[in-house]
Amino acid sequence: MPRYADMSKVELEAAKKTVEQEFLEYKAQGLALDMSRGKPSAAQLELSMPMLDVLNSEADFKSADGTDCRNYGVLDGLAEAKALLAGMLEDEPKNTIIFGNASLNMMYDTLARCMAFGTLGSTPWGKLDEVKWLCPVPGYDRHFSVTEAFGITMINIPTNEAGPDMDIVENLVKDDDTIKGIWCVPQYSNPEGITYSAEVVRRLASMECAADDFRIFWDNAYCIHHLFDEVENQDCVLDIGLACRAAENPDRYFKFVSTSKITFPGAGISGLAASSANITEIKKRMAAQTIGHDKLNQLRHARFLVDANGLSAHMKKHAAIIREKFELVCEKLDTGLNENGCGTWKTPRGGYFISFDAPKGTATRIVALAKDAGVVMTGAGATYPYGRDPLDSNIRIAPTLPPLEELEAAMDVFVCCVKLATLEKLLA
Amino acid sequence: MPRYADMSKVELEAAKKTVEQEFLEYKAQGLALDMSRGKPSAAQLELSMPMLDVLNSEADFKSADGTDCRNYGVLDGLAEAKALLAGMLEDEPKNTIIFGNASLNMMYDTLARCMAFGTLGSTPWGKLDEVKWLCPVPGYDRHFSVTEAFGITMINIPTNEAGPDMDIVENLVKDDDTIKGIWCVPQYSNPEGITYSAEVVRRLASMECAADDFRIFWDNAYCIHHLFDEVENQDCVLDIGLACRAAENPDRYFKFVSTSKITFPGAGISGLAASSANITEIKKRMAAQTIGHDKLNQLRHARFLVDANGLSAHMKKHAAIIREKFELVCEKLDTGLNENGCGTWKTPRGGYFISFDAPKGTATRIVALAKDAGVVMTGAGATYPYGRDPLDSNIRIAPTLPPLEELEAAMDVFVCCVKLATLEKLLA
Repeated sequence: MPRYADMSKVELEAAKKTVEQEFLEYKAQGLALDMSRGKPSAAQLELSMPMLDVLNSEADFKSADGTDCRNYGVLDGLAEAKALLAGMLEDEPKNTIIFGNASLNMMYDTLARCMAFGTLGSTPWGKLDEVKWLCPVPGYDRHFSVTEAFGITMINIPTNEAGPDMDIVENLVKDDDTIKGIWCVPQYSNPEGITYSAEVVRRLASMECAADDFRIFWDNAYCIHHLFDEVENQDCVLDIGLACRAAENPDRYFKFVSTSKITFPGAGISGLAASSANITEIKKRMAAQTIGHDKLNQLRHARFLVDANGLSAHMKKHAAIIREKFELVCEKLDTGLNENGCGTWKTPRGGYFISFDAPKGTATRIVALAKDAGVVMTGAGATYPYGRDPLDSNIRIAPTLPPLEELEAAMDVFVCCVKLATLEKLLA
Repeated sequence: MPRYADMSKVELEAAKKTVEQEFLEYKAQGLALDMSRGKPSAAQLELSMPMLDVLNSEADFKSADGTDCRNYGVLDGLAEAKALLAGMLEDEPKNTIIFGNASLNMMYDTLARCMAFGTLGSTPWGKLDEVKWLCPVPGYDRHFSVTEAFGITMINIPTNEAGPDMDIVENLVKDDDTIKGIWCVPQYSNPEGITYSAEVVRRLASMECAADDFRIFWDNAYCIHHLFDEVENQDCVLDIGLACRAAENPDRYFKFVSTSKITFPGAGISGLAASSANITEIKKRMAAQTIGHDKLNQLRHARFLVDANGLSAHMKKHAAIIREKFELVCEKLDTGLNENGCGTWKTPRGGYFISFDAPKGTATRIVALAKDAGVVMTGAGATYPYGRDPLDSNIRIAPTLPPLEELEAAMDVFVCCVKLATLEKLLA
């Protein structure tokens, strides 16, 4: 079959009729499938069930340093939890703070502190007339919601296989001191699954910024979330801390990780690493906000996951469950859409998403069609600030939650919807 | 023995010599005792150990509405957790939001939202030149740290047996629209153990405020923390929500509770209740901050504590452990200090503290002496904004943490230090 773009009107109309029929058949099945969010599947959650037996009523509730984890105290986290997450953060425990049940809250609070208090002596960002922020696109909708909540003006930054377009970034930050930061998901990015090149990381670390208090919000959410066990098939982003120290901008970054997609989403632990000056300031501010985060949950995680080896072994079990889901999605896209030329996509080696770029101006329609046929996708536009995708093209596919057979059905519907929306567009 | 104030100089010097000798004997014992914080004792923590078996690896992880509590979602809390805390909040579940592991974080975040965004359309407090806050004194040091962190000017409000002095409060708020709120611990207050009278609650609810966005931060931390099982020996503060609705100021309050002193401090759940307008706004703001708090811990609490009856039965077990500690402290103060006239104190019927007012100008010295003899008290001044007690008089006694025999030893030291500091002062 030729590419749709090469077809005559008569051929397109015939193709559309066929695809419409196919769509009606899917719709008649009354499906209720969900590929909208990066949620682990039930099978993945089962992997961490033994963690809940680690702290039963007979357990020892003292941390390694003798702290009774059932009582108040320990602002910045148990030593064993710091050691565990410092490994993921590629930093030292002393530069690490353990936060609560999710990294989103930690990132919001980190930005909220900068808004209310500034950072390392700078003017509180909330006191400025305007604050701007760089948003590599497509990106993570919840990041954009955080900056939007604080009234920060978001600037789209195109990305390529190596990360954000650094020529554009460097040009913007060198003259505009109202640009205070950038969102980065540097490894297996959300949604594209790309990993920043070492050069991109070094340029982010070393670029000249008009704002002394420019901060890289480094959300390394997928730092150990590989799809393949062999190291040669895994990505590994250069540590932004290392790069910033080398560039003599040691305070430029905040690194974030969590166990949300390792143990239980919403019932995990999260961690931040930064320079010792930043850590000192954050601890001072935190001391007014909390006596300390949930140490029982920290102890559970430290005892269950143990160390980097324990984490790695655990993540391989996740990969064994989700790898075939990613492969299925790519295969369905390949067989269903390649020959028609309906869109492009990337094949990631880790993370939680496949980023699909539909023909220009069709994403909203595709998502609406899919919903009509019982398949919920992430909303079109969600991967852009303010929910506005200027090309109406990008759709984030989240394959982890549905069981394999449901995913297969959902992808058949999705492929059909992409074809139908593309044909509608070509005939409009 | 006569009161110190009635003694001659010679008598005082003789008394001081005796007390100094006593002090040196205590010091020689090398004690290491802590009455500084309102921490539950190990025996109290044991009461909640069965809660940790509620969610083992064999448990059902679905909430009543079928939500898998191990995965993402549920911004405002599980229905069963809302029902449980709504009871403590004396409000409806629909006006309740469940937060994370501690009420301090929830109160800080509530204030932070008002600073960044205002409340119900008002100017963000952080945009104003000055924000002032009413602080009934003596009060809770961590409350004062929160307002101080945001640069809010704190105003001391004297309290009496019925709560804050409402004549002063009403006079201040009616003309000054920069006064945006008040901290209240309305039942078994920290540190005085008093409970606001119904009249005080009604006046707080109905007073004329120059600031439309004046907010009562109602930290009902000790709402079910009675020392006695008989209802006639329990305090019960009038619900501020009820009073505010009756006064047609329905949006004036935020009510806070937590399970920190019910199950595990730092590993509990917390809840906020407010008017439906406030709840709607908070949920909207929260949606940028978090996907939801730890639902596994919410489920644990709901299944373990069940309902108001379960809570009440559980709190009686706490009372059985701590009641005799309070009685011991009061007895030690009575026998040791009454006849000398060294200070005054209140005998609470609930809560976590006994508030001791030493002779003017001696509190700092007493705390220093006690520390020297191995007994850590809450810092002098801690119960006042900025850590400044204008009379250098109030000391908060926290009797719950030490075992009874340690508490007895610590109180003997404390009584000795009060006598010594008083004698030093009289002879200075």
